[in-house]
Amino acid sequence: MRVAVVGSTGYGGVELIRLLEAHPYVEITSVISSSSAGAPIAEGFPHLTEIRTDLLDAVDAEATRSKADLVFLATPSGIASQLAPQMLQAGLKVIDLSGDLRLKSPDLYERWYKKPAADPALLEQAVFGLAEVFGNEVKGQELISNPGCYPTAALLGLVPAVAAGWLDPSTIIIDAKSGVSGAGRGVGLGTHYSELNENFKAYKINKHQHIPEIEQVLGRVAGKPVVATFTTHLVPMTRGIMCTMYAAISGNHSTQEFIELYRSYYQGRKFVRVRPEGQWPATKEVSGSNYCDIGFAVDERTGRVTIVSVIDNLVKGAAGQAIQNLNLMMGWDETLGLHFVPVYP
Amino acid sequence: MRVAVVGSTGYGGVELIRLLEAHPYVEITSVISSSSAGAPIAEGFPHLTEIRTDLLDAVDAEATRSKADLVFLATPSGIASQLAPQMLQAGLKVIDLSGDLRLKSPDLYERWYKKPAADPALLEQAVFGLAEVFGNEVKGQELISNPGCYPTAALLGLVPAVAAGWLDPSTIIIDAKSGVSGAGRGVGLGTHYSELNENFKAYKINKHQHIPEIEQVLGRVAGKPVVATFTTHLVPMTRGIMCTMYAAISGNHSTQEFIELYRSYYQGRKFVRVRPEGQWPATKEVSGSNYCDIGFAVDERTGRVTIVSVIDNLVKGAAGQAIQNLNLMMGWDETLGLHFVPVYP
Amino acid sequence: MRVAVVGSTGYGGVELIRLLEAHPYVEITSVISSSSAGAPIAEGFPHLTEIRTDLLDAVDAEATRSKADLVFLATPSGIASQLAPQMLQAGLKVIDLSGDLRLKSPDLYERWYKKPAADPALLEQAVFGLAEVFGNEVKGQELISNPGCYPTAALLGLVPAVAAGWLDPSTIIIDAKSGVSGAGRGVGLGTHYSELNENFKAYKINKHQHIPEIEQVLGRVAGKPVVATFTTHLVPMTRGIMCTMYAAISGNHSTQEFIELYRSYYQGRKFVRVRPEGQWPATKEVSGSNYCDIGFAVDERTGRVTIVSVIDNLVKGAAGQAIQNLNLMMGWDETLGLHFVPVYP
Amino acid sequence: MRVAVVGSTGYGGVELIRLLEAHPYVEITSVISSSSAGAPIAEGFPHLTEIRTDLLDAVDAEATRSKADLVFLATPSGIASQLAPQMLQAGLKVIDLSGDLRLKSPDLYERWYKKPAADPALLEQAVFGLAEVFGNEVKGQELISNPGCYPTAALLGLVPAVAAGWLDPSTIIIDAKSGVSGAGRGVGLGTHYSELNENFKAYKINKHQHIPEIEQVLGRVAGKPVVATFTTHLVPMTRGIMCTMYAAISGNHSTQEFIELYRSYYQGRKFVRVRPEGQWPATKEVSGSNYCDIGFAVDERTGRVTIVSVIDNLVKGAAGQAIQNLNLMMGWDETLGLHFVPVYP
Repeated sequence: MRVAVVGSTGYGGVELIRLLEAHPYVEITSVISSSSAGAPIAEGFPHLTEIRTDLLDAVDAEATRSKADLVFLATPSGIASQLAPQMLQAGLKVIDLSGDLRLKSPDLYERWYKKPAADPALLEQAVFGLAEVFGNEVKGQELISNPGCYPTAALLGLVPAVAAGWLDPSTIIIDAKSGVSGAGRGVGLGTHYSELNENFKAYKINKHQHIPEIEQVLGRVAGKPVVATFTTHLVPMTRGIMCTMYAAISGNHSTQEFIELYRSYYQGRKFVRVRPEGQWPATKEVSGSNYCDIGFAVDERTGRVTIVSVIDNLVKGAAGQAIQNLNLMMGWDETLGLHFVPVYP
Repeated sequence: MRVAVVGSTGYGGVELIRLLEAHPYVEITSVISSSSAGAPIAEGFPHLTEIRTDLLDAVDAEATRSKADLVFLATPSGIASQLAPQMLQAGLKVIDLSGDLRLKSPDLYERWYKKPAADPALLEQAVFGLAEVFGNEVKGQELISNPGCYPTAALLGLVPAVAAGWLDPSTIIIDAKSGVSGAGRGVGLGTHYSELNENFKAYKINKHQHIPEIEQVLGRVAGKPVVATFTTHLVPMTRGIMCTMYAAISGNHSTQEFIELYRSYYQGRKFVRVRPEGQWPATKEVSGSNYCDIGFAVDERTGRVTIVSVIDNLVKGAAGQAIQNLNLMMGWDETLGLHFVPVYP
Repeated sequence: MRVAVVGSTGYGGVELIRLLEAHPYVEITSVISSSSAGAPIAEGFPHLTEIRTDLLDAVDAEATRSKADLVFLATPSGIASQLAPQMLQAGLKVIDLSGDLRLKSPDLYERWYKKPAADPALLEQAVFGLAEVFGNEVKGQELISNPGCYPTAALLGLVPAVAAGWLDPSTIIIDAKSGVSGAGRGVGLGTHYSELNENFKAYKINKHQHIPEIEQVLGRVAGKPVVATFTTHLVPMTRGIMCTMYAAISGNHSTQEFIELYRSYYQGRKFVRVRPEGQWPATKEVSGSNYCDIGFAVDERTGRVTIVSVIDNLVKGAAGQAIQNLNLMMGWDETLGLHFVPVYP
Repeated sequence: MRVAVVGSTGYGGVELIRLLEAHPYVEITSVISSSSAGAPIAEGFPHLTEIRTDLLDAVDAEATRSKADLVFLATPSGIASQLAPQMLQAGLKVIDLSGDLRLKSPDLYERWYKKPAADPALLEQAVFGLAEVFGNEVKGQELISNPGCYPTAALLGLVPAVAAGWLDPSTIIIDAKSGVSGAGRGVGLGTHYSELNENFKAYKINKHQHIPEIEQVLGRVAGKPVVATFTTHLVPMTRGIMCTMYAAISGNHSTQEFIELYRSYYQGRKFVRVRPEGQWPATKEVSGSNYCDIGFAVDERTGRVTIVSVIDNLVKGAAGQAIQNLNLMMGWDETLGLHFVPVYP
């Protein structure tokens, strides 16, 4: 299968290239960048020296169609809403890694993203590819919206319990922490080494655009609207997201029961690993891989459960899950080309 | 004033030495270590070369009394319960940085620390030196129990609102993150560089011995028992603690009202800096200094307030607050010898 | 092909497992540890949860032979000299990643390693597997000694120029820097997070056991004894080695001529990438991969050339090159199972 | 004494503020920035909240003179050559931390800095304030050129041996490593967190503008021109410089003799600490302080000495040495206000 990658000069795009190079059924036939078209991709990313010797193509749906059957859009928000229709029109399948097509409500998009929303018909068409939850809706589709990094970690950690009615949805608090690569390759004081190193920061509290994405899915599985508290922090490391999540338990469920609920929910899905009682996953234990690892503790003193989930934000939180969605679209084994053992240490 | 430091080969002890060297009224006359007595202190800490040329003394209350008027105990838990009575008996004032004398209930200590508690009379005598909250009880005392690092950050961020009745105490969640120096200088896989670097970990969830210390103080200011959720994480950095705290608001209070409440509560206390609306403190902005910085956001969507507090765990969370308590004991200006500008970047 | 890994609880062993899991012709049939036999390997390495569910085997040559055809020895120095003969005797092929079989002279080994040397016949039998230099000697052998991490980086950067007579061998200075994983998983103050983080250290100056290994190879290609200055430093990062190397130039050669000399020498060898003039390789550009990247600058002011080489110490400097040697032993394409794109960022 | 700081929004300027706040004889009466005049300094540097509440002043020599007696110029190169004459003209003493006034030869400046040189008379007037070497020339002067960060570390490690004729000056190689704060606060891919973290890079090989500064001083103390090889690397940490230096020994001198030579040369200078044989200084052992620590090893195998020197690039390599020069100018004890114990860990 021939694929193209738009946004090849960002971290999401270059991670797609890393992973796709290992996929047995896929060939990358075009790497595309609006800002650097004509330059060798290895110029900006010397780690690709002699691995990718091709030049960056310009954004042009027809030209892309002549080279590829499917296109990944790894662009900032506000771009895919324009590009996706052109690509679909040209006959390409599309997997969008940006936030443009995730929210079904244009109003919500505009309120949280402060940008014009995509066409409602396009939003309707896009399937939200949270693979272990909605993967069965992906097969045979033309347009997939790949979930955000934080929502992937948060939702994989919350959905089974919310769907089972084990949590009081009005008490959900998500305390999220991310490595700096989540902020992208754009330069600024906010990504300056000396400002972030040996530093731990909170940001966008109550204002992060991933809040409505999380609430949309939680509401869908809960069967009623859910409002959650969501906080983001920057960790002085490159890769990794941890969500530490809290909720009051509805009913009476032990840690071990939570573990069994989740193991049952994720039965047969290789990329979710539910940890045994007393073991907490750390971000490095999934680094470079497509795993999401989850741990639990019920606290009888407080009546709350604490759920910890970890992913590599660039893999399961972006490029890896996008390839998993490609596999699901095509009806292949969802793990194809994604058998990466975490890079540890 | 002549002071001695027990536990000079740990990070708390060596930080006391760093700070005390800058104190205008104090001379360190004995650095004490049970494990390395007789060796030059600079042998294990070459950064002290030519600054401290003295040898480590053995632990001996009478010998210490002959050299000093006050002793800091920067020892692991389980030691000060034995040492403090000897030191007091010998006529020394004592400031204990360990957890041994913080909990008024021996039962609670034994349940959370899994060690025998100190003598109840000693626990009774010890004054809990959370300087900005109970500082007025410290003056003239002989025995001060210096608060834990996490409790200092959490309590300075919660006490004014809890005391004012602005929070529903049954909803308090404290998501805490610490640099690795908080784990001390002891070696083990848990402090091994390659295991922690580029990694973010949760640990001791619902089991941390600082939980009863936090609840004891919150209960005291609330006037009724408080049970809180408290989670600890390890950040790949050396210094710094952030507590991100959540609670449902009782009544109707804006972010700005929280800021004003705290500014009023901490009026005249230089080491607490309440940040303006929209500005979140980062750990590096207090690194190397005795400051605790606090930020707030009320979320109308959820009815919760998010409170973020940061400290340097070795300064305000240990050695710095201990010196602040020394100043308060002696009736000196509490900032004496502690005018360190944060080391930034 | 069935292989076993001795030393599976160290970083070299666990990296072998990561890479071998991706090798199309190989199955790991036994993971072996003298210290943790009987325990699940994923207990000490949770990143392997559900990937490797087997228990660690004890060290037993006959038992290993019943399960495997070849064994990798990823043990500390002083072990392989004992184990390798047993394994060979049992009919296993052996690839040793330790320093035990690298030096042809037992005297040199004992002087630099301060341990008893292996049997001279064993040293004679062992082929030094610096793949891009001596790879043609590896095919069909039973016993390969895999080069050290520093020697791999240093020698790939020096051999072509020394072999061509372009450097004055009496002037060679190798200033080497390594990430902390090179120090292994053993605990100690020397690998303690708070001691190494935000710190840059020199160690073992003029005393490192890799010095005779480097000199042995340089002497062999120069056709006369070479004595070099070699310095090692610890960088606050987990993976990566850089060697910055200096020598006076014999004759008159430009930067571009050096580049061409090396490109010609490494013609057809995919894992050495010679960078264009003005571009310096950084360690992260090879991280997680088997590449060695090299850059050059001739300085007319001083008559010296500066050569910079980088590798991932756990891949090209250990497990990756060991698999490359497996491929060469078996007559397979040397890149088999090693097509890892560097993990960037 | 009233002082002003130009360039207060850079790392050098803000470090001057940190240190000067602890100086007993000095008051900062104006913080100056060309880019952010009118804004509170704590806006861009929240760690200064409530410590410095003043607004940034514009650059204006007369206005500065009305507030201050001396001005520190912590500006990028190319600025001080213009500003210093205005400040001197207005009657201010000047300490320049940039490279503009360090090279006595305008030609050399223009060749290495690619900018117009300062007026030759100004270059003539400026005293090069390498405190432990030329400190006796500083007293009573009006214009001091503060040495560069790399030259400070390199020269303090080389000057005594070169002055004594113990090194063959044609063989000097300086392999230098710096934390990222040396690159300043300017944003770019070169200071982007995800690009530098877990990465070790070489840069500006044979082209760094500090080369002529080092050679100028070595030539002066050697009594003849010296040409040296100088290489710079970026370490993934914020603060710290290490220079690892190599030279062939002239004559026959042991490690211990080198140590004694340096102890004698630096007799009475508190900020240079010569380490005992077998002990190598690490950058963290001087972090936050004005120390330069030096270690030695003579290698009989190669006839070379290896010299390792470390400093905090922002203190001894910039702001700290500038204050030391202020002390020397005024005839005060050179350590005044600089008694900072290194921040360890």
